[in-house]
Amino acid sequence: MGQRVFNFSAGPSALPVEVMKSAADNMLDYEGAGMSVMEMSHRSKPFEKIIQDAEANLRTLLEIPDDYDVLFVQGGATLVFAMIPLNLMTGSDKADYLVTGQWAEKAYQEASKFGDARVVASSKEQKFSFIPKVTAEEFRKDADYVHITWNNTIYGTKFPAVPDTGGVTLVADMSSSILSEKVDVSKFGCIYAGAQKNIGPAGLSIIIIKKELVGHAKEGIPTYLDLKTHADSGSLYNTPPAWCIYIAGEVFKLLLDRGGIGAMEEINKRKAEKLYGYIDGSKLYTAPAAIEDRSLMNVVFVTGDEELDKKFVSEAKAEGLVQLNGHRSIGGMRASIYNALPEEGVDKLIDFMKRFEAANL
Amino acid sequence: MGQRVFNFSAGPSALPVEVMKSAADNMLDYEGAGMSVMEMSHRSKPFEKIIQDAEANLRTLLEIPDDYDVLFVQGGATLVFAMIPLNLMTGSDKADYLVTGQWAEKAYQEASKFGDARVVASSKEQKFSFIPKVTAEEFRKDADYVHITWNNTIYGTKFPAVPDTGGVTLVADMSSSILSEKVDVSKFGCIYAGAQKNIGPAGLSIIIIKKELVGHAKEGIPTYLDLKTHADSGSLYNTPPAWCIYIAGEVFKLLLDRGGIGAMEEINKRKAEKLYGYIDGSKLYTAPAAIEDRSLMNVVFVTGDEELDKKFVSEAKAEGLVQLNGHRSIGGMRASIYNALPEEGVDKLIDFMKRFEAANL
Repeated sequence: MGQRVFNFSAGPSALPVEVMKSAADNMLDYEGAGMSVMEMSHRSKPFEKIIQDAEANLRTLLEIPDDYDVLFVQGGATLVFAMIPLNLMTGSDKADYLVTGQWAEKAYQEASKFGDARVVASSKEQKFSFIPKVTAEEFRKDADYVHITWNNTIYGTKFPAVPDTGGVTLVADMSSSILSEKVDVSKFGCIYAGAQKNIGPAGLSIIIIKKELVGHAKEGIPTYLDLKTHADSGSLYNTPPAWCIYIAGEVFKLLLDRGGIGAMEEINKRKAEKLYGYIDGSKLYTAPAAIEDRSLMNVVFVTGDEELDKKFVSEAKAEGLVQLNGHRSIGGMRASIYNALPEEGVDKLIDFMKRFEAANL
Repeated sequence: MGQRVFNFSAGPSALPVEVMKSAADNMLDYEGAGMSVMEMSHRSKPFEKIIQDAEANLRTLLEIPDDYDVLFVQGGATLVFAMIPLNLMTGSDKADYLVTGQWAEKAYQEASKFGDARVVASSKEQKFSFIPKVTAEEFRKDADYVHITWNNTIYGTKFPAVPDTGGVTLVADMSSSILSEKVDVSKFGCIYAGAQKNIGPAGLSIIIIKKELVGHAKEGIPTYLDLKTHADSGSLYNTPPAWCIYIAGEVFKLLLDRGGIGAMEEINKRKAEKLYGYIDGSKLYTAPAAIEDRSLMNVVFVTGDEELDKKFVSEAKAEGLVQLNGHRSIGGMRASIYNALPEEGVDKLIDFMKRFEAANL
């Protein structure tokens, strides 16, 4: 095996080395089953234990109340963008969206296909550099739900607090922040996340939803898109993405061993503060995101010179600090520092940034 | 590592040991990238090569003509059951289905939600023990397509030949037979398959479709369900199930190394003939499927005594011959002998069957 790099990719992203080592060790024979998890019937005892443990451990980690379902589905957040309106926009047929980034906008556009979706506020004109402040009065009282994107991966922002919707069901895409900090699940009707950032491999999405919201889907929708299909079958209506669920479950176990979400939040805050602190004090780098809305997971920064940004990304890569390029739509730099990116990686990045600043200022 | 078993599971199923060993060896550092395939951005150079090679090698294996797209999607065949009518049932709004098993019936029921789906023939009354013979005249001339399930996993039957649809586009679910025998792709408008039987891990479906059939989806459908979404983006509209595509790609490489589909078909025929030959000559076991419609991949058999069937499954398991139980809806036994189930496994199974017959007749 060659040298491991520090992988700052926004997703798919770094995974815990312990989990991957264990997966490699169990590749041909998972715990005496005589076969790989990839080869197991999803109706077999060992796999039933894998999926049930994964759900139970996620419930413990996030303190998910009993009146919420936990669903494992496929298709990424992109498919959930459709599932949300198809399942929830079925009362008044109205939904209010906060547009705080490209993914939030895509979620809104998808919902517009299926009912009266409305943009309540957007920071698009300001390059999504902040989270708009919205009061309860701005939401339609009869909306079926309000949709937010909790953490905006491309722009490095996140909601500083749960917005007050005046009682309207709140739905949040937490793809790039789930498991990084404590969240009061009971304030949300639904939280969902693609796994490939802070959970496990790509190909799995997790939907945490209040049970009373399931079972009211629009008529005649594809069976797979009805949340009831998955809720009624324990996410085993058809063959689930078994390997992804297995790896996610191993990550959940590891996080519990490490002290749970509270412990992760502490480390994540320390990592982010170090990096933002250095950027704020530097003469070369600036972070465009509003300070009060800064993401703990995606630290976006620029030098102000596109050529210099490219040089930064390329020289960092040569030192084993990889995937530091910003999203292809905005350029610059982005350090995604999810749970699995060790603090040592942040230290090495700051060390590199100092040397790069000294050489290029 | 403990002893490997012979895994006769119908899906998810056995995978080639070589592929899993290589995946384990490359777990922490894929070919010098310093990270796992699970950690790679789907927009990175190494992953682009993985997905492009997978497609190219599948094209070589199946001799897929250039005027066909190859799409990698999520959601299993269950989601494709909806994608097919949403994308293809858009001319006359009519589609004709041959119902040759539970999955075929589910495909038909899903299509019924979106247009005038009709059952042309069904063997349900005869417990799906054969493939109905249908002539071109029985299909509606103006149907947008005819749908068949090429191999019926639960009942152990398969189409003995491509049915004559009189020119109507033919769509085939080949989930449990793809890569097992030569197929003339040009006779089909679309072939699709869930990966978890004869390709790779669960969480990936492959759609092979004539390009001219893409781009005519019903209006207002979820973005993910429009085949054009995936065709236009090289299956990278959103994050794909990267690990599944990687493993599938490794399987494709291995099959090419082993001489391609022709070589696999020869081995598969030998394996199936051995097993059916023994069953036909035995006094204890019978295979309910019509002889001319027998599946090469799923060999279904019974003793005629439910208790004895259970004893068979249990004693076989004790000898490391596992997952020989029939589908939970019909009971009995089923030996799924996909590409990755070695001929040695079939020999051991027959040896066990002989001893079980001697002890229980």
